[in-house]
Amino acid sequence: MPHRIVHMLRARGAARRPVMLAIAGDSAAGKTTLTRGLVQCLGADRMTAVCVDDYHRYDRAERRDKPFTALHPDCNHIDIMEQHLQLLSMGEPILKPVYDHTTGRLVRPELVRPREFVIVEGLLPLHTRLARACFDITVYLDPPEHLRHRWKIDRDCRTRGYTPDQVRRELDRREPESAAFIRPQRRWADIVVRFAPVAERADPPGTPLSAELLLRPTIDHPELAEVLKEPGTAMHLRLRRDTDGRPVDALHVHGYVSPEESQVVKKAIWERLGPRAGDGIDRDALGRLSDGTASDPLAITQLLLLYHLLEAGDGQAA
Amino acid sequence: MPHRIVHMLRARGAARRPVMLAIAGDSAAGKTTLTRGLVQCLGADRMTAVCVDDYHRYDRAERRDKPFTALHPDCNHIDIMEQHLQLLSMGEPILKPVYDHTTGRLVRPELVRPREFVIVEGLLPLHTRLARACFDITVYLDPPEHLRHRWKIDRDCRTRGYTPDQVRRELDRREPESAAFIRPQRRWADIVVRFAPVAERADPPGTPLSAELLLRPTIDHPELAEVLKEPGTAMHLRLRRDTDGRPVDALHVHGYVSPEESQVVKKAIWERLGPRAGDGIDRDALGRLSDGTASDPLAITQLLLLYHLLEAGDGQAA
Repeated sequence: MPHRIVHMLRARGAARRPVMLAIAGDSAAGKTTLTRGLVQCLGADRMTAVCVDDYHRYDRAERRDKPFTALHPDCNHIDIMEQHLQLLSMGEPILKPVYDHTTGRLVRPELVRPREFVIVEGLLPLHTRLARACFDITVYLDPPEHLRHRWKIDRDCRTRGYTPDQVRRELDRREPESAAFIRPQRRWADIVVRFAPVAERADPPGTPLSAELLLRPTIDHPELAEVLKEPGTAMHLRLRRDTDGRPVDALHVHGYVSPEESQVVKKAIWERLGPRAGDGIDRDALGRLSDGTASDPLAITQLLLLYHLLEAGDGQAA
Repeated sequence: MPHRIVHMLRARGAARRPVMLAIAGDSAAGKTTLTRGLVQCLGADRMTAVCVDDYHRYDRAERRDKPFTALHPDCNHIDIMEQHLQLLSMGEPILKPVYDHTTGRLVRPELVRPREFVIVEGLLPLHTRLARACFDITVYLDPPEHLRHRWKIDRDCRTRGYTPDQVRRELDRREPESAAFIRPQRRWADIVVRFAPVAERADPPGTPLSAELLLRPTIDHPELAEVLKEPGTAMHLRLRRDTDGRPVDALHVHGYVSPEESQVVKKAIWERLGPRAGDGIDRDALGRLSDGTASDPLAITQLLLLYHLLEAGDGQAA
């Protein structure tokens, strides 16, 4: 049972190993946006970001003859991804493969040395038990599919030279593998993040998306019930059952939340972080969308992840 | 002390781990010729050959600005080489970097799964203690420098598009690093192999080079004193002191050895191997030079290494 060995080794050599955060989700689910703010906030000297979508077994030309898309585990060196996650989680460097999205070719690998914190984002970081054993905190990004499709069409047409119809066809082709391999990873997340418009009301144009954060009791979340006890606000914490019947806390942050209201939650988390959130932390980096606008739901999501990163780092020193 | 951990882990998980043989030596010392016959003899389905000269940190263009040549450890990802040797020695696959000698560029890495036997050849496989801890058998190829220079000029002009003057200048440039990093590895070899013309007599043209094999008591060599006890033959085994004063057995196989005489030693080793040297072993693959001619000194050298590979494989099962 290699995943147990990893758990044991990581528990033993705790003093110096990096804190590992996984951000899993389908293509264009928002992984990069979530990651970018965290790296900027903690600083690139303390944080390493790794994308595990580079472990392609075949390049774009070779995939044309294959009966699966790039999402399929058989299309990826999953065993090498597991190996590299284990090495990073022990503080060891890796020579990471690199896939060039522009040309669709596998190119010269790059050396990655894990810093104090490592964010691993990608399509399949939680696919296997051994991979999951490497993480302290696991996140699954779960936007509504229609929204994700729109984001993917926008991005792939803007930066990867595709037409909208090409992207739609690719989404159709990928759907069975999304269902089979990507979405089941939601099950293994400590936190499930869904950015979506609020269904119940028509937000004015320019309102950021709301965030719904399912906080599973698999890790210790900061105590927020006290600061969120007033009903009827733009933020609330509700005990409910997840789609599989398991109990979760659902933290809602509506897109129309006022700065004063979101500040209550932010302040509670920053206070809990105390001096750890002092020098070298760029608080303003949180909540920035890729178009430069600000989103309080995103800021609070990132702040919660920052909390867990710093908590896990502290837990090691103890 | 990571090298101790490797020793312990390898001793523990002995049942399934590959037998690891290192062949170290300077550029054009004959590593590929020695390796090729062993792979052919045991078969590519049982034997994996890995060259560790692909762990370049810089490509050819990047090296132009550097104050060292490709021989320098700082010019190579030595820590990743160590990591990959550890993984291979535990039976784990690696995604090995690939350096294209034709273009001088680092390209798409390749998956290497270790088979029953792994030969690791290259410039620096014995450079660090951790790397050395990964091997069952270590060999250093130590031809006279004037011979190696001639081989390198021949090869680099024939297959890599250089002129003789360019190769000579490169050899001069590399000499301080050969002395500092390559030749000190001789110290760590269980077997030091020197192919050279016999100095004492003028061999007729076409006589293969003689082999001098220093057999250090760091591993158990086959008992050859009995079959080689007659003096004055073209083969002999002599107890002597190495240049550093340490005792070694020196096995000489002269290039003019007769087939009958060399057969005595070959037979002794094949008999000692018994049924392990049966089905699937291609005895005729041993002793072939790259130009297609045969060399008994090479054949006996390879047979001795084959002996150690199969012995080490057996030692694991016990």
